Amino acid sequence: MTMPSENINHATKLKEALRSAQADGRAFFDFAEHPEYIKDATEISFLPDALLFAESEPELIDIVRFCKANDIPLILRGAGTGYSGGALAVKGGLLVSIERMNQIDIDSKSKTATVGPGAITGDILEAAQNSNLFYPPDPASYLDSTIAGNLAENAGGLRCKKYGVTKDYVISCRIITADGQVKAIDAGSPFGQLDLMIGSEGTLAIFTEIKLRLIDHPCEGKTIVAVFDKASDAAMVVADIISAGIVPSIMEFMDRDAINCSNQFDPDNGIDEGAALLLFETDATGSDSQQASAEADQIITICNKYHPTLLRLAEDESEKRKLWSARRNLSNAVKHVGQGKLSEDVCVLPSRFPELIAFVEQLSETSGLRINCFGHAGDGNLHVNFLGQPGTDNGPMIERAVVRLFEKTLELGGTLTGEHGIGITKKDFIEKEFDIPTLNFMKRLKTCLDPSNFLNPDKIFPTLS
Amino acid sequence: MTMPSENINHATKLKEALRSAQADGRAFFDFAEHPEYIKDATEISFLPDALLFAESEPELIDIVRFCKANDIPLILRGAGTGYSGGALAVKGGLLVSIERMNQIDIDSKSKTATVGPGAITGDILEAAQNSNLFYPPDPASYLDSTIAGNLAENAGGLRCKKYGVTKDYVISCRIITADGQVKAIDAGSPFGQLDLMIGSEGTLAIFTEIKLRLIDHPCEGKTIVAVFDKASDAAMVVADIISAGIVPSIMEFMDRDAINCSNQFDPDNGIDEGAALLLFETDATGSDSQQASAEADQIITICNKYHPTLLRLAEDESEKRKLWSARRNLSNAVKHVGQGKLSEDVCVLPSRFPELIAFVEQLSETSGLRINCFGHAGDGNLHVNFLGQPGTDNGPMIERAVVRLFEKTLELGGTLTGEHGIGITKKDFIEKEFDIPTLNFMKRLKTCLDPSNFLNPDKIFPTLS
Repeated sequence: MTMPSENINHATKLKEALRSAQADGRAFFDFAEHPEYIKDATEISFLPDALLFAESEPELIDIVRFCKANDIPLILRGAGTGYSGGALAVKGGLLVSIERMNQIDIDSKSKTATVGPGAITGDILEAAQNSNLFYPPDPASYLDSTIAGNLAENAGGLRCKKYGVTKDYVISCRIITADGQVKAIDAGSPFGQLDLMIGSEGTLAIFTEIKLRLIDHPCEGKTIVAVFDKASDAAMVVADIISAGIVPSIMEFMDRDAINCSNQFDPDNGIDEGAALLLFETDATGSDSQQASAEADQIITICNKYHPTLLRLAEDESEKRKLWSARRNLSNAVKHVGQGKLSEDVCVLPSRFPELIAFVEQLSETSGLRINCFGHAGDGNLHVNFLGQPGTDNGPMIERAVVRLFEKTLELGGTLTGEHGIGITKKDFIEKEFDIPTLNFMKRLKTCLDPSNFLNPDKIFPTLS
Repeated sequence: MTMPSENINHATKLKEALRSAQADGRAFFDFAEHPEYIKDATEISFLPDALLFAESEPELIDIVRFCKANDIPLILRGAGTGYSGGALAVKGGLLVSIERMNQIDIDSKSKTATVGPGAITGDILEAAQNSNLFYPPDPASYLDSTIAGNLAENAGGLRCKKYGVTKDYVISCRIITADGQVKAIDAGSPFGQLDLMIGSEGTLAIFTEIKLRLIDHPCEGKTIVAVFDKASDAAMVVADIISAGIVPSIMEFMDRDAINCSNQFDPDNGIDEGAALLLFETDATGSDSQQASAEADQIITICNKYHPTLLRLAEDESEKRKLWSARRNLSNAVKHVGQGKLSEDVCVLPSRFPELIAFVEQLSETSGLRINCFGHAGDGNLHVNFLGQPGTDNGPMIERAVVRLFEKTLELGGTLTGEHGIGITKKDFIEKEFDIPTLNFMKRLKTCLDPSNFLNPDKIFPTLS
């Protein structure tokens, strides 16, 4: 669906204001030229009044002041890989792409990376690796996603149980607040300003520069793949690993239909059919690979207790790459096979993970919908996918199934979003997750920091009143 | 000095509202009975209109709503060990002591402590130790300070370089916001609410329950004391230790006059005279004490390079206790010897620590004041003490010297408060440390979360307009 913007007035003002950027080929008003910018990974689309490829912090300051003064919605866009609609111009206005502000400076001595907001997560990792350093947060879309998008959603990733999420690596950043002031904030800034901004989904301020903490590159990891006949066996393996105190750097789960999608998308993916698959990586800091091997052995022993139909320690780089690429491509595979999908990322305590998986299986059966799931078993973050079916409009059925998933997640004490954010896709459910004092508190913060509600409006909150 | 409160109206209303608490012996209106509650460690005092020893969260909710409705200042008080005047009733109003809400529940399985806001930091540590667990943050006043006071100031302590500050150990807490609503917040609460509250000096909300993360008890530590003829030698030792990547669990510095005060206060403290003293503790997680011994050896080797006049590895528990008690008592010793003192806790990067120490020495010489310093060398946090002299009113001279100290600290890129907070003693300097956008942002947060400005008013900000 594409919602048209009706603010002729905004369009006229923006055309006037962005004339010189248009001459530079950086401002656009007709989206036939840039159709991919009106949507994101949700496949929902909204038409902004204008699109600007921003180049610098001073330009962004002017933009913020102009949009505030003219009451024009301002939406920042990273790579559009988000699954909650955070980068969509729901109320029209100016969509600003930060993809050209992508400089990356690695300082090996202080083990930091100073990057532009549009730097690609995977490029930061690669630059760090070139200095034998490492940037751990790796959302599945890390080869495309931008760092500012990661900050806006406080993205996690496959390694987050062991290494933490985006927030844990941000030393400081420069932001422009809704009143058009620019300032540097860090962990020592009073009133927890850094934590306030990270995860605020573009509704409170704009990131213009980010300084990240890097760590020493871990030793080369061991990769293990295990397939089971019953999803409950895989769940027991995860529980045993956690209670044994083993912390793999990655511990990913896929259900039967996710495995099928992966196999269909790439038959040469190294993965056997089965009810459930676990994919592990173990690593260790520094060059000592003994710990990684020892942990891999422990994981293999635990897997063997539950009669895996496949259990392999990857032998070489090429086998590892094949397995991880199957996992990294899973989201695309599901989308491709299912002819579109709605993806939700619910999260429960690891101890409730088996119940959640069982519920998804049951939900698929009772609803008659094609639903599959995969995710980060170590921290209970499950990506549940509702697949489109050709020739049928199963939208309303999917909507009902999503509600049931959310209700079950909250019943299990979980949260509606592990790392994708609330955006527009979950804002109708936020009142179910947070109590009234918490919601009021959040609304008050939004209202006080952006009184005219022009920064990424209509996100997170169903209403601001 | 004692400032009288002039709000007869508030007093009358509070007497009416607190009648039943008065009958229980929990509410007081005459401070002759409780003279210690009108002041804190700054020795400045202000008269509140009433003092209540609170007993429960429901009572605190009523109190917050009553004070808000009647526009009566509400000040929460832990143990009054603060050095920034945070617990003083600057504008009169109701002073609430939380010291009776001091329950401590240790859960060994989840390694957590759930405690009341008035639980004494040292009692939490002791309770944790009884379960072979450990609560690391240890402000010098930990034997008296309350946990809610620690949260309000985000207190650090001797071990903070290795183990982090209070904030790093708070899993969740229950708070009452200025609108009288109670809610639970944790690290996952949106908009970084937990980080917003920790360190907000009682100006944004009230803590009613706190859940703390505990760690496994480290092995028994090694204690080393080293005395040098020149302060610059001690500073070089610190620099060498940091650049060698050694992280002692404690690394404390004392200057010549601080050593003198300690010796005068307790001649049997195990400390020799000298220009500078360093006191180290090394430890390691678990029961393996090899790392602690190895680090102690490395520290001794580095100290020896700078010709210490005393260098000892404490031989037994009693010697360790004696040395640490000298350090823990230092603040009292300085106050006692100097007949009162003004204590500031400035903080610079460890690399600028030597310059800061040299400046304090020079400031003492040029001002003619008795000034000494001690502090946490590992994280550049220096407690600078301006001593009172009997028979002289050197207040204005001290004020000028403090200004010079603050200016120098900022010139060195430092911060005016490592862990004591802004309170009233530093609020006139906050505009020197933070830029206008940051200050405006903080004021906006305060104004939006406490629009009637009744929660600990007149703290942090010189003005709120």
